[in-house]
Amino acid sequence: MLYVTRRAIFSASHRLNNENLSEEENKEIFDKCNNYHGHGHNYTLEVVVAGEVNPVTGYVIDLKVLKSIIEENVISKLDHKHLNHDVDFMKGINPTAENITVAIWDRLNGKINEGKLYSVKLYETENNYVEYRGEANEF
Amino acid sequence: MLYVTRRAIFSASHRLNNENLSEEENKEIFDKCNNYHGHGHNYTLEVVVAGEVNPVTGYVIDLKVLKSIIEENVISKLDHKHLNHDVDFMKGINPTAENITVAIWDRLNGKINEGKLYSVKLYETENNYVEYRGEANEF
Amino acid sequence: MLYVTRRAIFSASHRLNNENLSEEENKEIFDKCNNYHGHGHNYTLEVVVAGEVNPVTGYVIDLKVLKSIIEENVISKLDHKHLNHDVDFMKGINPTAENITVAIWDRLNGKINEGKLYSVKLYETENNYVEYRGEANEF
Amino acid sequence: MLYVTRRAIFSASHRLNNENLSEEENKEIFDKCNNYHGHGHNYTLEVVVAGEVNPVTGYVIDLKVLKSIIEENVISKLDHKHLNHDVDFMKGINPTAENITVAIWDRLNGKINEGKLYSVKLYETENNYVEYRGEANEF
Amino acid sequence: MLYVTRRAIFSASHRLNNENLSEEENKEIFDKCNNYHGHGHNYTLEVVVAGEVNPVTGYVIDLKVLKSIIEENVISKLDHKHLNHDVDFMKGINPTAENITVAIWDRLNGKINEGKLYSVKLYETENNYVEYRGEANEF
Amino acid sequence: MLYVTRRAIFSASHRLNNENLSEEENKEIFDKCNNYHGHGHNYTLEVVVAGEVNPVTGYVIDLKVLKSIIEENVISKLDHKHLNHDVDFMKGINPTAENITVAIWDRLNGKINEGKLYSVKLYETENNYVEYRGEANEF
Repeated sequence: MLYVTRRAIFSASHRLNNENLSEEENKEIFDKCNNYHGHGHNYTLEVVVAGEVNPVTGYVIDLKVLKSIIEENVISKLDHKHLNHDVDFMKGINPTAENITVAIWDRLNGKINEGKLYSVKLYETENNYVEYRGEANEF
Repeated sequence: MLYVTRRAIFSASHRLNNENLSEEENKEIFDKCNNYHGHGHNYTLEVVVAGEVNPVTGYVIDLKVLKSIIEENVISKLDHKHLNHDVDFMKGINPTAENITVAIWDRLNGKINEGKLYSVKLYETENNYVEYRGEANEF
Repeated sequence: MLYVTRRAIFSASHRLNNENLSEEENKEIFDKCNNYHGHGHNYTLEVVVAGEVNPVTGYVIDLKVLKSIIEENVISKLDHKHLNHDVDFMKGINPTAENITVAIWDRLNGKINEGKLYSVKLYETENNYVEYRGEANEF
Repeated sequence: MLYVTRRAIFSASHRLNNENLSEEENKEIFDKCNNYHGHGHNYTLEVVVAGEVNPVTGYVIDLKVLKSIIEENVISKLDHKHLNHDVDFMKGINPTAENITVAIWDRLNGKINEGKLYSVKLYETENNYVEYRGEANEF
Repeated sequence: MLYVTRRAIFSASHRLNNENLSEEENKEIFDKCNNYHGHGHNYTLEVVVAGEVNPVTGYVIDLKVLKSIIEENVISKLDHKHLNHDVDFMKGINPTAENITVAIWDRLNGKINEGKLYSVKLYETENNYVEYRGEANEF
Repeated sequence: MLYVTRRAIFSASHRLNNENLSEEENKEIFDKCNNYHGHGHNYTLEVVVAGEVNPVTGYVIDLKVLKSIIEENVISKLDHKHLNHDVDFMKGINPTAENITVAIWDRLNGKINEGKLYSVKLYETENNYVEYRGEANEF
């Protein structure tokens, strides 16, 4: 079994805000990330597919195909958008890096035609990133 | 003469839009960068100061001081902000990388206490950056 | 379950030397890393916390909090220090990347207030890094 | 148990081509990667060795030794070569990133004198990489 | 005046060889870079355009346009090619980084519709790069 | 005229201290950089040579030769050393990034056999770097 990773980048705005909390509580918890008009990042996404090597192609998955799947399902929806306002599958979701990562996993899961979705990693800045492997909490 | 560079990063949103143009013209020129709610970047800023080495300190400029000047005049104003809405010195300015870079130069110019401001570079993504050296057009 | 990573950097000196060996043996094993006055690195540290997303915050752990825990327990102790001379919890430990990594794990373990410490990675140069996940040897 | 990683780089040419397929089929599957004279990459290799810390050295494996093992068995064979023509252990193998990674694993496996080979990662570009851990397919 | 940089990447093979020298002389001068079937790199190209900010757009040059000019004139010709065999404008040119850089300058010069071509930089590896600004030798 | 850059890395310790000042003054000016036993960095050096392309080789300077010149005159002297104690040409010099950069320029100047030394850049961390072009102060 091999793990094949494809990287993609999108530039988006977000505002951290829990709609079920008061303005003061949101300010308290999210601080400068709660700025009303939002702020933004160049998000770097890594999608990892695990599987066997196809003996005809020598690929786990054709990266041209994987690139298209990521482009169609994720990048075209998130790039140059405000994640709180412009993205149907993020509606009502507080766009923390954690929640964006799970939302991307859910968008991609079931759409990988060769191998199996293994991991989604999202770098918000050079200092912070999140990984999700579709696991339930094991602790 | 030596050139000393200090790097800093800020995460901000912006929307490219010329207020003197119609909605259709803005859409035509700025395309996805004209998205109503904006999008965002991790902007990487490099500030270059040129000067002689101070024989007492061995520095052109103390980088702790340069870091504070950048923090106070630029980062604290732009980080976790929407550049079209939240920044007094960007009011009425279309926040292209070029215009942000000149605005940062203007904020810093005259505030460098040792050496002389030589260059401001702003990376918007890993593929795009702008440099300004305070020069008038020489062509 | 998600994995959240926070990066931090510290600049430190070290000298590889086993106090139980002779000068010749240390020279033989550690070669230029045994230089008497030491040498140094910009160490890049990555701390990974695993856990569920808190439904109120959308975080596994608030990165402002994680940053403070790393700053207080690790960075403030190691940054701009000589690891053989200046760090109480490294006393008597030969400061290889492996031993520093385990020492950092031990400093952080039990101090993470949300989620669970999953991994500590330490990059000594762009060519070398070490990871520890708190595992006993399984081979 | 710790995981120690050593990075190395080689610059090589390759052409993706399955000798059992027709010219048209190869063109169809591999597209521009099937260019007759090939194209090339700066391949970045990461070799991960897992093991206990040796109490005498403080190392899992002496990186000078690991560097030599990688140099002798991999880099000296692949660097500044055309992978389809110049490399004995790649003869008859379609040099996809997946197949090169498994070939490098097979070259290194059994030659690591301390600890155990845990993972081989190969970055073909900044957007694509492959990892192999010697696992059979588990799905 | 501002300097705007656009980055692009191409993966190509080359063989350093001067057709006017003997096989032995080429082997002597170019060593492993003279390997008969060639070797390859992920070349990183940076194109710098200098000019004034257009007051309507806030751009020196629209980067979508600059990207297209680079794509059409350079990347589509060099990416996934062998520079000695597959590129019309490199015919008869020994493809050192220096010569490729000048050839790219010549391809782009006169095709930049806003501002003026200022510099072409070409990174062959992470350790080597070349810059050309269209200057005659001034020494 | 072209500009050719070669990168090299060395890991070293240093302590910022002006021997003509008191202990208190040094502590005041250099703060944590004045730590008695020093601290360290992975210094990244870039050496830029300017010149014409040699029509026989297609090179400004053979990078194998430039690499050797840098290795012999700089890296072998500074790598895995304490700059205050172990380096003859740094004796009595306060090893700020500025002073190290000028010392490296002086070591290399006159030793470049093809083209001309144009610039020396030294990155102390990812946030700080210094460049020297052999210029007298022009302000």
